[in-house]
Amino acid sequence: MSQYHVFTPEHAIDYARRHGPGFDTGARLSAAEVGDGNLNQVFRVVDDARGRSVIVKQALPYIRCVGESWPLTRERARIEAGVLRRHGEHCPEHTVALLHQDAGLSVLMLEDLSAWRLWRQALMAGEAPAETADRLGHYLARVLYHGSDFHLASIAKRAEMVLFSNPELCAATETVFFDDPYHDHPRNQIAPALRPLAEQLWRDGPLKRRVAALKHRFLCDAQALLHGDLHTGSVFVTEGGLKVFDAEFGCYGPMGFDLGSAIGNLLLNHCGQPGLHPGEKGRAEQRRRREEVQTLWRRFHDDFTALAAGCADPALAEPGYVADFLARVWRDSLGYAGTELIRRTIGIAQVADLNGIEEEETRLACQRTALTLGRALILEADTLAGGKELAALVAACRQPSGEN
Amino acid sequence: MSQYHVFTPEHAIDYARRHGPGFDTGARLSAAEVGDGNLNQVFRVVDDARGRSVIVKQALPYIRCVGESWPLTRERARIEAGVLRRHGEHCPEHTVALLHQDAGLSVLMLEDLSAWRLWRQALMAGEAPAETADRLGHYLARVLYHGSDFHLASIAKRAEMVLFSNPELCAATETVFFDDPYHDHPRNQIAPALRPLAEQLWRDGPLKRRVAALKHRFLCDAQALLHGDLHTGSVFVTEGGLKVFDAEFGCYGPMGFDLGSAIGNLLLNHCGQPGLHPGEKGRAEQRRRREEVQTLWRRFHDDFTALAAGCADPALAEPGYVADFLARVWRDSLGYAGTELIRRTIGIAQVADLNGIEEEETRLACQRTALTLGRALILEADTLAGGKELAALVAACRQPSGEN
Repeated sequence: MSQYHVFTPEHAIDYARRHGPGFDTGARLSAAEVGDGNLNQVFRVVDDARGRSVIVKQALPYIRCVGESWPLTRERARIEAGVLRRHGEHCPEHTVALLHQDAGLSVLMLEDLSAWRLWRQALMAGEAPAETADRLGHYLARVLYHGSDFHLASIAKRAEMVLFSNPELCAATETVFFDDPYHDHPRNQIAPALRPLAEQLWRDGPLKRRVAALKHRFLCDAQALLHGDLHTGSVFVTEGGLKVFDAEFGCYGPMGFDLGSAIGNLLLNHCGQPGLHPGEKGRAEQRRRREEVQTLWRRFHDDFTALAAGCADPALAEPGYVADFLARVWRDSLGYAGTELIRRTIGIAQVADLNGIEEEETRLACQRTALTLGRALILEADTLAGGKELAALVAACRQPSGEN
Repeated sequence: MSQYHVFTPEHAIDYARRHGPGFDTGARLSAAEVGDGNLNQVFRVVDDARGRSVIVKQALPYIRCVGESWPLTRERARIEAGVLRRHGEHCPEHTVALLHQDAGLSVLMLEDLSAWRLWRQALMAGEAPAETADRLGHYLARVLYHGSDFHLASIAKRAEMVLFSNPELCAATETVFFDDPYHDHPRNQIAPALRPLAEQLWRDGPLKRRVAALKHRFLCDAQALLHGDLHTGSVFVTEGGLKVFDAEFGCYGPMGFDLGSAIGNLLLNHCGQPGLHPGEKGRAEQRRRREEVQTLWRRFHDDFTALAAGCADPALAEPGYVADFLARVWRDSLGYAGTELIRRTIGIAQVADLNGIEEEETRLACQRTALTLGRALILEADTLAGGKELAALVAACRQPSGEN
């Protein structure tokens, strides 16, 4: 195992040359830092002459955008490699390809998807490929099923739970999803005009009890090996495909957490449309978001149900049980989607679908819608029978201005 | 770390002399095997001259009562020592004292409770100490609270989940609780006259879906560090005290599993009373069992709630959440109690409260009651609001003969 040291572009080139596919010794390689800079170093290493490229991603022993004062385990590189390996085994068409891993260096080599587009950017531009939600539903069914007790024998699954124990990154998730946004915490980023609405949330006992239950479920309920950070910025899309990446938050947890993260981000985009695309274009995009949420859930539900026909567990294979279970996953997904809407609006890590809206009053109105919808999802999760009822709730939840 | 070898009584004496409290070099020690012989070797080492004694328990690399053909990890000794240490830290008055552990030898030295009585024997004799259920409720609140997210910070608790991962013994639990009794499996022990009732269970789809949910919860829901085998034969009692032992099935799991195991065993004794104590004595014992179930739950509930006032988790500390959570634990407990009644009546490991009834028709009637009550508990768990409603259900559930 290699000795850890922080990569320069030259190190990335040297690593890519030694382990990359098709970079022979004579190739002239260049490397540039391309990461969003939050957690890790990400280099793109290119052989221009042959038109080949790879991504070299290295975990630092701290959070990059903060510095050495906020240490964070390099274990996350091991977790990410493991999750990509598992998910790649069960859904290779929608998982970024892991080409090489060096555990000592906390380095992963990944296929280069720079020619693809982030789903979030495509959604914001109103140009998301039509099949995306369907593909993500397929991915979620494949990866969540195969990491669950429906597929794995108990002893094997308990070993996986140990292998993918990811305490530090889970603690970060718990803090930003379930703690900070429900208290007056200095990490929150709250527009002054939104503060009264935030303070309402902080005083909302029934809401906070539901959030406590969702957090407790995330802490305890090891249903499947999650991606753990499945927002629309963790998904690359093209007209012909979809690839999920950035799996360092992977852990065993409730399936509804991944589904809810994805649904929540589609709904954040929905909330932002009056600012992103005023008028009919925005309303059409909103109709698409509502359809996409339904498509995502339906494809997940149908594929998971089909896979569960092969379940070998004597108890879980009982006819009807998978439907009981998926009804609970649906309710969980709505609750987690609600927490995603709220934390992305007033918490530490926000999204361009809302914050990218330049006109202030419109942006605030969209943010108010997100908070209102998030709260409604958390409180009404148990009463929304299916995708249509959800779509109706979302369509009815508009910003107070009455526009749109 | 010592090299593993199977203990003879002489080895147990030597080990006790080296590590036991107060066995000086001149002491004359004797040792006898005193285990029930199912899984392990258990020696009682005695210094008659000084009136001191200890228990030396060794895990074998197989199930003792079957032999080397059924291997079982010696890891269970490490788990047991760890669970006793944790539980002993949080409830020393009700946890058997761990005096020494040798990991290499898979040996534990434990305080000798031979002068105490198994709770099951006391219950069958109609001589259970009055405070027992109350004490067990206190024990459960203390140990389950301190192993849960209410007490442990997320990172520490996830480390505990890894430390106490116990795949092989959990798989045994899952098989005997949730699989075998609901199918025609050769491991089941079904009196021919009970077979029609067993076959009814095997065809009962709604029941089996609920059992699937209970098994799935046991597989996934890591709420607290459980004892994992808390039947009335894992509890020593005296008029003045209670000590829980045999913790090798310890694991992270749903709190209702431990509570349900204990409640289920009280109810098994309830079902057996027409055979154990015909007439008024039996009816009085049944009233006591119903009261004990309520006492056990009330003490657990009240102590847990009081402890949760000190919860430091920003989300779980929300006022009202612990009550929401305990309502779910109550429902789980009823369901797991139901599975305990069923598996102890037709599964591989049965109980003397029923099987010890000599008169065949009475025994069969009691067993039928146990199956009927078990099924009712599983199906009606969500509708029984509290201990009184449970007691009413139990009182109404009598064997078909109409006696009692």
